[in-house]
Amino acid sequence: MAEVKGNCLVAQSGGPTAVINSSACGVVQEAFKHADAITGVYGAHNGILGVLDEDLFDIGKESERTIESLRTTPAAALGSCRYKLKDLAKDRADYERILEVFRAHNIRYFFYIGGNDSMDTTGKVCRLAAEEKFEMIAMGIPKTVDNDLVETDHCPGYGSVAKYMATATMEAGRDTEALYTTDTCTILEAMGRNAGWIAAAAGVARQAEQDAPHLVYVPELAFSADKFVADVKEVVNRLGRCVIVAAEGLTDEKGNYIAADAGAFGKDLFGHKQLGGVADGLKALVEKEVGVKCRYNKLGTCQRSAMHFASKTDADEAYMVGAAAVRHGVTGTSGKMTSLVRQGTGPDDYVCTTGLADLQAVANGQKTVPRDFINAAGNHITDAMRDYVVPLMRGEVHITIGGNGLPVFMRFERHALPAKTGQARSTVSKA
Amino acid sequence: MAEVKGNCLVAQSGGPTAVINSSACGVVQEAFKHADAITGVYGAHNGILGVLDEDLFDIGKESERTIESLRTTPAAALGSCRYKLKDLAKDRADYERILEVFRAHNIRYFFYIGGNDSMDTTGKVCRLAAEEKFEMIAMGIPKTVDNDLVETDHCPGYGSVAKYMATATMEAGRDTEALYTTDTCTILEAMGRNAGWIAAAAGVARQAEQDAPHLVYVPELAFSADKFVADVKEVVNRLGRCVIVAAEGLTDEKGNYIAADAGAFGKDLFGHKQLGGVADGLKALVEKEVGVKCRYNKLGTCQRSAMHFASKTDADEAYMVGAAAVRHGVTGTSGKMTSLVRQGTGPDDYVCTTGLADLQAVANGQKTVPRDFINAAGNHITDAMRDYVVPLMRGEVHITIGGNGLPVFMRFERHALPAKTGQARSTVSKA
Repeated sequence: MAEVKGNCLVAQSGGPTAVINSSACGVVQEAFKHADAITGVYGAHNGILGVLDEDLFDIGKESERTIESLRTTPAAALGSCRYKLKDLAKDRADYERILEVFRAHNIRYFFYIGGNDSMDTTGKVCRLAAEEKFEMIAMGIPKTVDNDLVETDHCPGYGSVAKYMATATMEAGRDTEALYTTDTCTILEAMGRNAGWIAAAAGVARQAEQDAPHLVYVPELAFSADKFVADVKEVVNRLGRCVIVAAEGLTDEKGNYIAADAGAFGKDLFGHKQLGGVADGLKALVEKEVGVKCRYNKLGTCQRSAMHFASKTDADEAYMVGAAAVRHGVTGTSGKMTSLVRQGTGPDDYVCTTGLADLQAVANGQKTVPRDFINAAGNHITDAMRDYVVPLMRGEVHITIGGNGLPVFMRFERHALPAKTGQARSTVSKA
Repeated sequence: MAEVKGNCLVAQSGGPTAVINSSACGVVQEAFKHADAITGVYGAHNGILGVLDEDLFDIGKESERTIESLRTTPAAALGSCRYKLKDLAKDRADYERILEVFRAHNIRYFFYIGGNDSMDTTGKVCRLAAEEKFEMIAMGIPKTVDNDLVETDHCPGYGSVAKYMATATMEAGRDTEALYTTDTCTILEAMGRNAGWIAAAAGVARQAEQDAPHLVYVPELAFSADKFVADVKEVVNRLGRCVIVAAEGLTDEKGNYIAADAGAFGKDLFGHKQLGGVADGLKALVEKEVGVKCRYNKLGTCQRSAMHFASKTDADEAYMVGAAAVRHGVTGTSGKMTSLVRQGTGPDDYVCTTGLADLQAVANGQKTVPRDFINAAGNHITDAMRDYVVPLMRGEVHITIGGNGLPVFMRFERHALPAKTGQARSTVSKA
């Protein structure tokens, strides 16, 4: 017997991934199974912004096929955002508005798929609802290619970017291996502001001495230009070429970013620096100090949206944390994030189940790459890192290919819910 | 009955592709079938450099499985180079050396897989051999992601980069569509120095009004910053976001590159400018003049080596031109390039066969995107371009995936042929 009865709302937040829609699919398909508790299944357009704007739509009116196709469509089909709610103690306006919209649409279940900022939002909404005696369930569902959430073994989204970046590194590595007599050095820039999980995953591409990447740099360790130049020289002397993977967030010993984007929008709305340009800087360093030609590849948002070579393990786990959040919710659990719990002792007996994590702990934490996942020289990964990431990269997602040879992705029809609060408010246009 | 009997040498040149090894596989597997004409099948390490260095290996000693795995391994497994032979009239040293090595190893068949510079080399070797009365067959096999060779409907390598870039554009487009409230604009930089074939292929990703890419710019049309800014503003106003594909080789009305790489190795050994940085420049323009945040993705060498999502049509045709070169060679044809000939009237009755093209015509020509493949506004493609490229992107190559979730690629064992010319010469180290 369900504790709470009403409509449910699912929303997505933060940087998209190849499998964040699998989590949405898990929520939606599981929610349909609990008609005793969940009467309508709604989506918010662009995360919490859609709630503030009362921009909601009825997922129950979408076809089963559209919903199933979420599992093979990258990025956030509901729409995402980077809107950070203000401190509840200082400014309650956004929170009051959220509850107003929830009340108006009898939304009693809120499932928010995102990273630590979204877990913070989910926790605050949950607390305010309790304060205001609005009976509801709020559950967080983890998502981030950065893999930096605490209280979960790993994050949905990471396995796919890991698989793709390692593959792209293998392929670009073969390119450099073929053309090293002119294009001797190649740098791949990996996403990762404060955590080097993606760059480290690319390290798995090296299975033999001659394989790329020959060098891997993560932001967890201070970057030294002198050490870098010496590393590259050593590899070029030994192999005649060098392929390097560098995380975008590399900093020097004083914590200054090696290369911050000089654009007009150099910081995001949370005050995070928008990074980029590390590869350009390192390329210039290689050409000047090592004296060989250097190229760089910056896969950018292509790395986190690469559905065409996503990890099946990752997609399945993303679905699992979504569905588990609903199952926990309808039995009365609230204010938690579903987590991934690794069973087994190594890559070959890997089994993953779900658990529950404290939202506030997730919101305030950040998991970086442990020191023992990186070698002593600080320029490649260890077997501990391989054992951690390899199980997450296994399996391929079979996507539909159209008559033009390209993937087929879904879009929601977005049957809008009629506005009930009578307030015109557009935060979207200002976000 | 074969016209010429002796060993055959296969070599690869220029920028690698996802399927240049399929062409090598076609040459090798076909050559094995003609033991009456072709006694040994050799490979040159790093293209014509391997000939000059007498760095040759016996492909006959490789396993059948290794040879078959060429079809699923990207880049140039034999090794490639960008070494341009001097004018035959001015400096015969390189040519004499090539013939010396061919004579020493009784190489009577030379199959060179490459772009127009390689076709030039093949033609010159062929002419010199005739002058010196060294009976041999020299055949060119087309390869280039740039798709800019004349005398062939399209080039092996292009279909795969087209498929991959269009897919990456779809995926990055969904990412921008999800997060447009903060990351409004995304630019994908496509390879293409003087021809916009790759950028134009990415245009196929747009199947509905709202799909990425919203704008496509090719170097065939002079780039106007004012027009560009107006285009982006119009799309952002209409859709709230904008995804742009720009070829690296965009030039202004005076023919100056919009953004040339400022690195120490700004030109390649042929004097071609090494481009890059177009996307950075356009990003700055968007942020300054349109006033929205802009990201950019530069897939670089990852785009041309993306075996994990190659086009089967492309891979099969690459094999076909390789095998055809051998079949023509053993019946006495020399000094030609095998070409691809399109049958049928549209994308749905596409059939492709091989033909023969004049090496000199290919060496001296360059095929750019026809004006009617680009719309009147000069900012997207037309149905003519779609009809041309769609058949080339069809089908997926099934690659082997290892226990770590990553592709498995081959490497030659490289059983070196004993040197016979007694000359130590290393052009490789200087190239």
